[in-house]
Amino acid sequence: MSDLPIVNIGICGLGTVGQGVWKHITRSRAKFESRLGARLVLKSASVRDLGKKRSVRVAKSRLTDDPMALATDPKIQIVCELMGGTTLAKDVTLAALRLGKTVISANKALVCEHGPELFAAAREHGGHYFFEASVAGGIPIIKALREGLVANRFRRIYGILNGTCNYILTRMEREGLTYPVILQEAKALGYAEAEESLDVDGWDTAHKASILTHLAHGTWVPTKAMVVEGITQITQADIQHAKESGFAIKLLAVIEQDEKTDEIAVSVAPMLLPRTKVLANVNEVYNGIAVTGDVVGETIYIGRGAGQDATASAVISDIVDAIALLLRGNAALPEPVEHNYPLAKPENLTGRYYLRLDVKDEPGVLAKIATVTSKSKVSIASLDQRPSDQTGAASLILTTHRSNEKAIRSTVNNLRRLSSVLGEPFLLRIASFED
Amino acid sequence: MSDLPIVNIGICGLGTVGQGVWKHITRSRAKFESRLGARLVLKSASVRDLGKKRSVRVAKSRLTDDPMALATDPKIQIVCELMGGTTLAKDVTLAALRLGKTVISANKALVCEHGPELFAAAREHGGHYFFEASVAGGIPIIKALREGLVANRFRRIYGILNGTCNYILTRMEREGLTYPVILQEAKALGYAEAEESLDVDGWDTAHKASILTHLAHGTWVPTKAMVVEGITQITQADIQHAKESGFAIKLLAVIEQDEKTDEIAVSVAPMLLPRTKVLANVNEVYNGIAVTGDVVGETIYIGRGAGQDATASAVISDIVDAIALLLRGNAALPEPVEHNYPLAKPENLTGRYYLRLDVKDEPGVLAKIATVTSKSKVSIASLDQRPSDQTGAASLILTTHRSNEKAIRSTVNNLRRLSSVLGEPFLLRIASFED
Repeated sequence: MSDLPIVNIGICGLGTVGQGVWKHITRSRAKFESRLGARLVLKSASVRDLGKKRSVRVAKSRLTDDPMALATDPKIQIVCELMGGTTLAKDVTLAALRLGKTVISANKALVCEHGPELFAAAREHGGHYFFEASVAGGIPIIKALREGLVANRFRRIYGILNGTCNYILTRMEREGLTYPVILQEAKALGYAEAEESLDVDGWDTAHKASILTHLAHGTWVPTKAMVVEGITQITQADIQHAKESGFAIKLLAVIEQDEKTDEIAVSVAPMLLPRTKVLANVNEVYNGIAVTGDVVGETIYIGRGAGQDATASAVISDIVDAIALLLRGNAALPEPVEHNYPLAKPENLTGRYYLRLDVKDEPGVLAKIATVTSKSKVSIASLDQRPSDQTGAASLILTTHRSNEKAIRSTVNNLRRLSSVLGEPFLLRIASFED
Repeated sequence: MSDLPIVNIGICGLGTVGQGVWKHITRSRAKFESRLGARLVLKSASVRDLGKKRSVRVAKSRLTDDPMALATDPKIQIVCELMGGTTLAKDVTLAALRLGKTVISANKALVCEHGPELFAAAREHGGHYFFEASVAGGIPIIKALREGLVANRFRRIYGILNGTCNYILTRMEREGLTYPVILQEAKALGYAEAEESLDVDGWDTAHKASILTHLAHGTWVPTKAMVVEGITQITQADIQHAKESGFAIKLLAVIEQDEKTDEIAVSVAPMLLPRTKVLANVNEVYNGIAVTGDVVGETIYIGRGAGQDATASAVISDIVDAIALLLRGNAALPEPVEHNYPLAKPENLTGRYYLRLDVKDEPGVLAKIATVTSKSKVSIASLDQRPSDQTGAASLILTTHRSNEKAIRSTVNNLRRLSSVLGEPFLLRIASFED
């Protein structure tokens, strides 16, 4: 073994994921070394607090509190950026890439916000920037899109990309408890962050959707060009109505390309997904992605979307790919071709909608509502009225035929102004994916 | 574009899959060329009948009826073996590999029966042998096992790997028709071969299971060391009982490695799979594979398992990988490490069983059967008796607690000898996968 080439790896950030990577590489080193024909050395790790106790044993001599020193250490060939954030993490990543190193990241926000700059730095200096762990944890979806499905154009990709939201929605459905109650429990169990808004408001999913869109289409869609909505307003009325109508409510990212105009539309929102779809039955912290390719048809990928081990699995697969490349001269990889496909205007998106209103329980309410919807040319497909928690009020659930965002938003605005409508109307999209 | 390197591709076999590859490469050539930085030339195709009409246009000058001439043509760098069979296909593959070419195959029987020899030839002469299309059609499961999940050891892999059987079982369940009726229809629709036994007797699935086992564990398991059973004896009584008990019947390949002994067990058989499992809801011609890794947990892959386009998608992804390697000097890839793990003896496999018996409708039958099962130490978990089609007979369905193959086979043998038991007892395995 002594004449094997040595590959030195540095880990920036020894949090949950960093410790997972350290643990599993240490545990399976012999397997990787025999597969790769190289010695893997975990050269050093950078941490914020040198004194903190960790679940993996790392010699003090290998710890540093200076990630930049690690990233620019001439002995280190592969840098794993597992710090998170988009400021220091960006500097560290760029510094390593500019030295021709390969950087492996689990940082979806960084890839999403600074992808073009980071990819350019990798290309220019002969290194690589890999980020399998940034989307859907342990599911090798990035490799599938880049390589396995390379023969395809992707008309539609949709997925459950946030384990926290899926966990909350699953428990709301199974246990009939309210969003705030489940959220508190999820926090206590470590399934939700103390500051949960990145997850529950849809931004984490939007970052991941942006990365998948670039992989599939070569076009960067900023989150501000997407519809992005979260799960915080979902009530048991919604969950129960969905259940009774044969749907599950899932926070979905939907990436579609119009066959005629090539326009790309990306939405992130809780949607009613028919139970007959495989992803409607992907529950708890699991992620799932359905990819429709023009050659292969629909393929589906399911697995744990987060957590120490699943994410470490993805980081390690990138490390192994990076080492294999390094040992063969680190040549450039075929990259998705960049395209500036036009972006669909969110207000032009079409679909079916679900609308929940609390209304005064008095005669003539339905007529007023029907007048408002017909003015916006929104056609009602079903209507379900049930008692509300409030006395003198009723809960009204409408579903529409195919309409568009502009019409439905105008409808919601006009409904809000009716004196018979109490509180805020609540809107969900119905994801039928029938075509 | 004119100074781009040229890559010449030859297609041995222009049947359904070959034509699909030709069609999609022709259609998306610009995309592949811009991604790869090379010109892709479909140099020639070999066919059995030069005069036959095909759905793709291929200039006469590019057609040959001599696959060996194609495989050894010095201008051709990448050979796609899409002929099928294990004799001429093997000679052609070996000839190309011995010239250092890369061979891409959809031929599961060939990989399964001659894998070691073919891999060795690729290694020795500096080429590659790729076979993504040989298992689960368009699902990039081989890439997932080789690369995406490289950090893992695989305790259990199970999957629906034969679209024909899944199509037949799905229709039997949905329409209540018998196996022979659906089989005839499937043949008429082109979903089953005229000679269907490779599919319905489980051998096609066994070939694919062997390939997955080698990828996951580095050990070749010959089909004769597996339990291999088909779907031809399944009746509506089985389907209905399964449905009512919360199961679907699926032809599954199950690959398990014992954590303590490292023994590998591979079974192919129709099994009762709980409806709560995602794969129980994978229907029609779709394939699905559930992979449990020690790091990532369970990941699931679903897609079309066969057909022109899905298979072409897999072949083309191998072609793109091969070209990218070729342009970078065609260096060796990290390979799964070979292991000679011990193989579990089929008779030692344990599990729960389902047993259907036609019995005489007379007093004392149950007592006789219970005596037989208890002699073999098989413990009955449930018993369901219903009228049979025959007068004076009843259909008896037993399920057992955990037992083993030896005990259950001895039970079946002893039951067969009882005068109260009419015809052949029919055995299914219950795949609970609870641990």
